[in-house]
Amino acid sequence: MTNTLLVFDETVTRAGVEGWLRHLEKEDDVEMYRLGDTHILSVADADLIDTASPELPTPTHQVLQHKEAWLGRRDVRPGGTAVSFGPTTIGDGSVAVIAGPCAVESREQTLATAAVVAAEGAVGLRGGVFKPRTSPHSFQGLQWDGLDLLAEAREKTGLPVVTEVIDPEHVKRLAGVVDALQIGARNMQNFALLTAAGQSGLPVVLKRGFGCTVEETLAAAEYLLLEGNDQVVLCERGIRTFEPSARFTLDLTAVALWKQRTHLPVMVDPSHSGGHPDLVAPLSLAAIAAGADALIIDVHVAPEQALCDGKQALMPYEFADVMAKLAPLAAGLGRHMSEVPGVQ
Amino acid sequence: MTNTLLVFDETVTRAGVEGWLRHLEKEDDVEMYRLGDTHILSVADADLIDTASPELPTPTHQVLQHKEAWLGRRDVRPGGTAVSFGPTTIGDGSVAVIAGPCAVESREQTLATAAVVAAEGAVGLRGGVFKPRTSPHSFQGLQWDGLDLLAEAREKTGLPVVTEVIDPEHVKRLAGVVDALQIGARNMQNFALLTAAGQSGLPVVLKRGFGCTVEETLAAAEYLLLEGNDQVVLCERGIRTFEPSARFTLDLTAVALWKQRTHLPVMVDPSHSGGHPDLVAPLSLAAIAAGADALIIDVHVAPEQALCDGKQALMPYEFADVMAKLAPLAAGLGRHMSEVPGVQ
Amino acid sequence: MTNTLLVFDETVTRAGVEGWLRHLEKEDDVEMYRLGDTHILSVADADLIDTASPELPTPTHQVLQHKEAWLGRRDVRPGGTAVSFGPTTIGDGSVAVIAGPCAVESREQTLATAAVVAAEGAVGLRGGVFKPRTSPHSFQGLQWDGLDLLAEAREKTGLPVVTEVIDPEHVKRLAGVVDALQIGARNMQNFALLTAAGQSGLPVVLKRGFGCTVEETLAAAEYLLLEGNDQVVLCERGIRTFEPSARFTLDLTAVALWKQRTHLPVMVDPSHSGGHPDLVAPLSLAAIAAGADALIIDVHVAPEQALCDGKQALMPYEFADVMAKLAPLAAGLGRHMSEVPGVQ
Amino acid sequence: MTNTLLVFDETVTRAGVEGWLRHLEKEDDVEMYRLGDTHILSVADADLIDTASPELPTPTHQVLQHKEAWLGRRDVRPGGTAVSFGPTTIGDGSVAVIAGPCAVESREQTLATAAVVAAEGAVGLRGGVFKPRTSPHSFQGLQWDGLDLLAEAREKTGLPVVTEVIDPEHVKRLAGVVDALQIGARNMQNFALLTAAGQSGLPVVLKRGFGCTVEETLAAAEYLLLEGNDQVVLCERGIRTFEPSARFTLDLTAVALWKQRTHLPVMVDPSHSGGHPDLVAPLSLAAIAAGADALIIDVHVAPEQALCDGKQALMPYEFADVMAKLAPLAAGLGRHMSEVPGVQ
Repeated sequence: MTNTLLVFDETVTRAGVEGWLRHLEKEDDVEMYRLGDTHILSVADADLIDTASPELPTPTHQVLQHKEAWLGRRDVRPGGTAVSFGPTTIGDGSVAVIAGPCAVESREQTLATAAVVAAEGAVGLRGGVFKPRTSPHSFQGLQWDGLDLLAEAREKTGLPVVTEVIDPEHVKRLAGVVDALQIGARNMQNFALLTAAGQSGLPVVLKRGFGCTVEETLAAAEYLLLEGNDQVVLCERGIRTFEPSARFTLDLTAVALWKQRTHLPVMVDPSHSGGHPDLVAPLSLAAIAAGADALIIDVHVAPEQALCDGKQALMPYEFADVMAKLAPLAAGLGRHMSEVPGVQ
Repeated sequence: MTNTLLVFDETVTRAGVEGWLRHLEKEDDVEMYRLGDTHILSVADADLIDTASPELPTPTHQVLQHKEAWLGRRDVRPGGTAVSFGPTTIGDGSVAVIAGPCAVESREQTLATAAVVAAEGAVGLRGGVFKPRTSPHSFQGLQWDGLDLLAEAREKTGLPVVTEVIDPEHVKRLAGVVDALQIGARNMQNFALLTAAGQSGLPVVLKRGFGCTVEETLAAAEYLLLEGNDQVVLCERGIRTFEPSARFTLDLTAVALWKQRTHLPVMVDPSHSGGHPDLVAPLSLAAIAAGADALIIDVHVAPEQALCDGKQALMPYEFADVMAKLAPLAAGLGRHMSEVPGVQ
Repeated sequence: MTNTLLVFDETVTRAGVEGWLRHLEKEDDVEMYRLGDTHILSVADADLIDTASPELPTPTHQVLQHKEAWLGRRDVRPGGTAVSFGPTTIGDGSVAVIAGPCAVESREQTLATAAVVAAEGAVGLRGGVFKPRTSPHSFQGLQWDGLDLLAEAREKTGLPVVTEVIDPEHVKRLAGVVDALQIGARNMQNFALLTAAGQSGLPVVLKRGFGCTVEETLAAAEYLLLEGNDQVVLCERGIRTFEPSARFTLDLTAVALWKQRTHLPVMVDPSHSGGHPDLVAPLSLAAIAAGADALIIDVHVAPEQALCDGKQALMPYEFADVMAKLAPLAAGLGRHMSEVPGVQ
Repeated sequence: MTNTLLVFDETVTRAGVEGWLRHLEKEDDVEMYRLGDTHILSVADADLIDTASPELPTPTHQVLQHKEAWLGRRDVRPGGTAVSFGPTTIGDGSVAVIAGPCAVESREQTLATAAVVAAEGAVGLRGGVFKPRTSPHSFQGLQWDGLDLLAEAREKTGLPVVTEVIDPEHVKRLAGVVDALQIGARNMQNFALLTAAGQSGLPVVLKRGFGCTVEETLAAAEYLLLEGNDQVVLCERGIRTFEPSARFTLDLTAVALWKQRTHLPVMVDPSHSGGHPDLVAPLSLAAIAAGADALIIDVHVAPEQALCDGKQALMPYEFADVMAKLAPLAAGLGRHMSEVPGVQ
């Protein structure tokens, strides 16, 4: 048996949806979901829909419920979801570039890199303060000290900031400062963390696990959506394959599939995928051409001194070069580069 | 620069090791680790070792420190680590079989399955109470209610129990009841969870992530070992490959490599790897022949009614058949089947 | 529409089968296949089977025809196929070990290695004379000169020899000398070569391509079987995965699946799979425990001087050690080591 | 020891190079290679270069010889190689699209499809006459009958044609008719076939094996280059990974790496990679943005009747849509669409 989803738009209030609920609950096992400002009812007995009072608000549309993950399916919201990241929007057709250091390492490094990426047209600043490292003996990030540096960089540049969260207990404190949370590839199926991040109300960048499938990523996003949080960006960052020439194999087929299957915006991380500065430009261009809404790029004012993943970070002049190539490509695709109001 | 590790045996007390510490700290950046009952010092300046007072306790041996993960390396403890799982031991050369349902679903199902696996020679009971599921809409386990059923099954059968932990906040309560914790494949790089499980003092079965390498699994184990907990069992349960005929591809090369590279015992899960009952017998035999110390096998008294992974569970008579084949194989390898004292 | 296969045993002559053919051809699009000494008819209209004259020979059994590859399916010949390799048999329940150098390099190396493997209990000699190399600048084998050395080694030791064929034009000349042909992993889907090898009438060891699936290997074998040649051995030699610790990932799930799905014997190459001498013993034991009928192992009297893949070859004493471990394992599985009549 | 390569340009005749040869051969083990119209000498003793007579022609540049494959390295010919495909050129900075049916099935289908792709701006026609099929029971192509149809389609449309060769014995006859040969993914390491195709003198499209690496593809190309044939196009068509949502995972990182590492043009096959019409447009755009010189796209006037891979073929209107998107993208990249002189 496949349920029918009644999808309402944001003009329909909770009170209106509860009218439907009262009608349906008499004879059915109905469930109510919230997706940002809109409501969805999952109805087992589709015949009941026809017997509803004409005074009940009309659903925007009806779709069949998919088994594993349905809140994120494109047909639930065919127009797509726009995600607000500080003053900017991801998923509105523009090309958004978020950039910054892999890890926040020092005040100087963070502010200098933030200034560079802002000047070159990035619309957001990335910077890890808690770093999930394969080995416990590697640098684990500046932790809470780093968070203040991100806030200062935002104040100086006007760029909204995104940082990775690795522990459910950190969510609230991080959410009080940053503009978006990132769930890393290694935590894509850390369901306790997903639920906590979903409840934060903040936008969440969900990175695909490097051993996880396109559909499993949608199912992981469902944990976020189920908390009523529709501000979710899926991020492709390369998968594990037999090919040893690059750190990971960027899967742009996944980008194309997500754009077809889900209403959520899609981001690509060309830096962690390729693992080499020379690959960032071609993979960035390819990602946008495949349909990605946003890029997240490692930039460092002094990559050779980086404490984490310096090998792949772009130097400022290299980042400027990528940005210079993206603008005409975006035009060729009938799109434009995103901008932060008031920056630049 | 590569540090030298001074490895002491369990006859050397903390006081004795602290004598070394005082000697070395004068001129070096020494670090002290505890691995179960033994201590290890990591020394940057190897020359200082020769100038130590002859009254200081003699290290058992010295080894060079590997970069990513060293506490688990075989050369740190060439004789191997024996892990105590309730009244039984994993890693003493015997062949240990842990069995039970994928998920604890009901009192009847749990007790009946426990009785069967005990009767057929299993030395431990598995049963999931918190189930990490790809989709939030799938059965998530009986949660705390299931824990009581596991305790009751242990009382009835004498078998120690192992269950999966998925949230750092659950560790203490679970550890108060079960005999070992399992970290699932999806959480192998959930470092907050690893640290919490390491601190529990309980034995931990660490499943390899299906997209993670042999060396990354050792690095994940290092998070557990770094808490002083040496009661760690590595578990191979199949990796993701292009081959669609089985659910995962069991990597027995990993088993052979771990037996060579680490002092930790190795377990194999033929049920989740193959995803089909017909594959359990050949993969179990192959795993033991490759050098695995233990198996963890899904058994269910009524697989067709299972709420989770029923497709792969063995029926009681199939499990009996696997056990009947394992005993002569173990003999052919110069090993014997593990037994629980007092059971059977 | 799925055809029905009428399978006859070797007591039914071609004349008998042609009686059936005449009956069926009147109204159906029947096809006749030969599998070694037995015949198979593929019938579209199953109703015609019941109307056959009782004087026609009775088929041993009827099975439904699989779409992609059916001549190799287990249900066509449930008792399995025994492959004659010189004086020995592969697939009769025994454990057969074929060993020798990766490449024939010199008379001395070949005869010395052959003598060693014969003395330790191998039942066949491997040795490449045409080597398919990734780069054209690598050693390509002694080519036709090497073939004489293989023949001489056979004469001296009594061991049958197998060598790889890489060009359809070489098949006849090689088949005039050796006891079996090998199709290498890189040529598993070289269909012109498969057809030529099938027509040779010689036993063929078909190595699975490292990027090919279990079912594609069966489909490749079908090219051999379709020439009437049922003397085919499938060989698992590792697949490409993301795991970098070994050269390839040995897929013993494939061995178990082939033993269930096909009537053909299964061989495993632990040398090329692991790419390291230390992995040969555990992978050999695991392969036999998983159900493999035979092993093919690289041995070299002086691995450090090998012109090809020397890194993975066993030294004579290491090969002796593997053989010493295999015999009790075979006994534990209720099997025995194969022997060449008159050798040893 | 690493040799030095002396690279001459096409103004240096064979006679000039032979002067060098005479000088070097006195004291060195020099080797001479031809790459299209240019010559290369590989010199072991670099000191001899300085002692050459000033009357000898000056090499364009010197580079160090890579071990596995060097004739195809970018530094040997930094300006890149332009491949002539009939009246058009691949690798001159333009965007070339080759299109047509996976298999030539009938006169009507071939001519109709050729007319469509010519009208929409393709610069070449693809069409398989010998089809390498996983199973011997699948349609194997029209074989020699199909070749005449390709020739007729060329005559009607002016488009050059490319077809796959699967048997070394077919090379000469095919080369007498078509404008380029294709080596399929399954034959990338069929070295006898590579050598025969290299000797044909025709341009060769070399498809990457779906289980083969970026570097192995370069090594396979070396077999072609070693025959003096520099008219080689590398083609990425997807690799095998764990991801089941598409037929293969397109590896555009490989495209970026090849553009950096080799002087050969790069093509991408979005049809066989994705295995679905909806993926062709995004993957085509992404491939060109990543730096690919050409695309090869399956088009069929009636995909639902195709005898081979119909599922992935574009219908004419879908192909027109892809072409309409490619032109502005090319402009955004500072490139232009390739055209056949006189067609359109």
